[in-house]
Amino acid sequence: MTSSRPERVAVVGTGLVGASVAMAAGRVGASVRGWDQDPERLSRAAARSGMGPAADLEDCLADADLVVVCAPIEAVPALVARCLAAGPGTLVTDVASIKGRVVAETRGVAGSERFVPGHPMGGSERSGPEHAAPSILDGIVWVQTPTEETEPASVERLSDWVASLGARPVVMDAARHDRLVAFVSHLPQVASTTLMELAATEEADEPEILLLAAGGFRDLTRLAASNPSLWSGILLANREAIVPALDLYAGRLAELRRLVAEDRADELEAIFDRAKRARLTLAAKPTVRAGVAVLQVPVPDRPGALAELTRTMAEGGVNIEDLQIVHSPEGGRGTVHLTVAATEAEAASEVLAAGSFDPTRLA
Amino acid sequence: MTSSRPERVAVVGTGLVGASVAMAAGRVGASVRGWDQDPERLSRAAARSGMGPAADLEDCLADADLVVVCAPIEAVPALVARCLAAGPGTLVTDVASIKGRVVAETRGVAGSERFVPGHPMGGSERSGPEHAAPSILDGIVWVQTPTEETEPASVERLSDWVASLGARPVVMDAARHDRLVAFVSHLPQVASTTLMELAATEEADEPEILLLAAGGFRDLTRLAASNPSLWSGILLANREAIVPALDLYAGRLAELRRLVAEDRADELEAIFDRAKRARLTLAAKPTVRAGVAVLQVPVPDRPGALAELTRTMAEGGVNIEDLQIVHSPEGGRGTVHLTVAATEAEAASEVLAAGSFDPTRLA
Repeated sequence: MTSSRPERVAVVGTGLVGASVAMAAGRVGASVRGWDQDPERLSRAAARSGMGPAADLEDCLADADLVVVCAPIEAVPALVARCLAAGPGTLVTDVASIKGRVVAETRGVAGSERFVPGHPMGGSERSGPEHAAPSILDGIVWVQTPTEETEPASVERLSDWVASLGARPVVMDAARHDRLVAFVSHLPQVASTTLMELAATEEADEPEILLLAAGGFRDLTRLAASNPSLWSGILLANREAIVPALDLYAGRLAELRRLVAEDRADELEAIFDRAKRARLTLAAKPTVRAGVAVLQVPVPDRPGALAELTRTMAEGGVNIEDLQIVHSPEGGRGTVHLTVAATEAEAASEVLAAGSFDPTRLA
Repeated sequence: MTSSRPERVAVVGTGLVGASVAMAAGRVGASVRGWDQDPERLSRAAARSGMGPAADLEDCLADADLVVVCAPIEAVPALVARCLAAGPGTLVTDVASIKGRVVAETRGVAGSERFVPGHPMGGSERSGPEHAAPSILDGIVWVQTPTEETEPASVERLSDWVASLGARPVVMDAARHDRLVAFVSHLPQVASTTLMELAATEEADEPEILLLAAGGFRDLTRLAASNPSLWSGILLANREAIVPALDLYAGRLAELRRLVAEDRADELEAIFDRAKRARLTLAAKPTVRAGVAVLQVPVPDRPGALAELTRTMAEGGVNIEDLQIVHSPEGGRGTVHLTVAATEAEAASEVLAAGSFDPTRLA
């Protein structure tokens, strides 16, 4: 196994995540081949990502330095075994969102010292390669859960590659990963889906209910649009962590219900207060985005103000990765959040200041 | 009572909503006076909104055509009674998010034919007049829940005014309003707060838990940063609707937990599938935004592309209300969503097309 950055990357399974991985790998100069059991999906992924479509799995794996298995969790263990057999120098990882099962079902497989189970903590409520984008992986935490058989050098090599894509490698054991994601990923999904389904059921009696659904409801139910079979698969694969997490959640809801029913204002407010403080702490943490910087820029409210801002950036040669108007520019003044590459943050600040803007770097 | 649009508006209580109402009323030409029992908050609100700060409540109400009571729900009934006494031509409304209690506690008050209980379904997880913006009210549903004593002419007059601010007046009875918001507003708040508090509690044992909190968790817990005393007040004031809604939510969570524990993949997937279909239907409904139009515009990925777009708009004299980059402009092409005043949508499309952009009107 070489320790240099993988030059030939194979992506097995070319849905949203597979095609996004292919695009991110291509962006850092790798040659990428992909394969999917659905030829139609493979061809859409190839068109979107620029990966080379392989005729079959063997063709896809030939000469690969790194294989990223992006298949549904049920298919992962068997595919990992086949990928490890491709060659003695091939590093293999997967992206399944539950790791305990993958670790258990690949135990003792030939070549397992070259297998590093992984989970990029990004994605989208959309699915399919046509929604792929390398930005899905920008700055995300990419967990690796080495098994007892994984060689440290394999972990190191995968970490380097993950970091080269702009993501943030974090290593922990599989059981711990599964327990943590039950709280911060699976429980939010269940909460969102359940809220949406309940409101939709109520709609049968109350046709106007969703007319009253404002931004808060929309935020809370965005995840409910996620892929149903993917999510029922995830919950079942992580049953041992999900069931206790759901019980803790239900217990807290029951306690809150009791406080409402018994008119216990102080205790109720204390719960809201703890949650608020925790959320503000979360918001204050640097967002998990490596590689980009955010500049806050006040702008006056008149036609042309935004044009002046973007023209100033263009003339300074700085590309805008993202632009968001934080308050609608009413009442005479708006605020724009500009996202630029971290390496260009200083240049962007100088260019803006020279153009008589007053940028503040937020992150 | 005149039937013309209110020219002198009094805002009683100058927090986030009060100051936002003042700004929106000022924008359509009304003269606005405000009062708050906290002089310091009043002065911050006056500085932000341009309202005239009144020395006391009587001063605030003098000659007002319309009084908007934006105080905490506990204070609303007594304030409404005082405001109705200000003059025989004064229309009074409030903005409390629960209506049953306001209706019950103002029954039989002198002048009640001029009181229209109201609830603008917008806001922010932030509080305080310094975060006020008229855009908080743009295009939102503004519910009115007339009592048995409210004169139809009062409802009509308030509806006209609400529409003039760019919001969407919807009339329903108070009990129904309270039942519906329990599902689409209060339950999401409880779900969000409970998720955040649970994760924060787990953090004591698992310091890395919030490191794994990605976009989904952040979306789901944004509401948890809301004002604690406001929300404990809301839940207690709407106890009769909240408790049954919480019970229905808990029942659905318990059912989902059972399906996970019993490995019932098909039934589990059916729940996710129903929720997904409902969420997609919600997304497809025209967003509740009157007065604005959204144009989708593909842009190439290079420094200056955004500048060209915004310069084209500026040269065409069209103001951009909001601008959002929907996919990060990577992979050669990005998509920008431009929000403009509905009255300028056609002009914007023509200006963009003439500048060799290819806009599609989304809403």
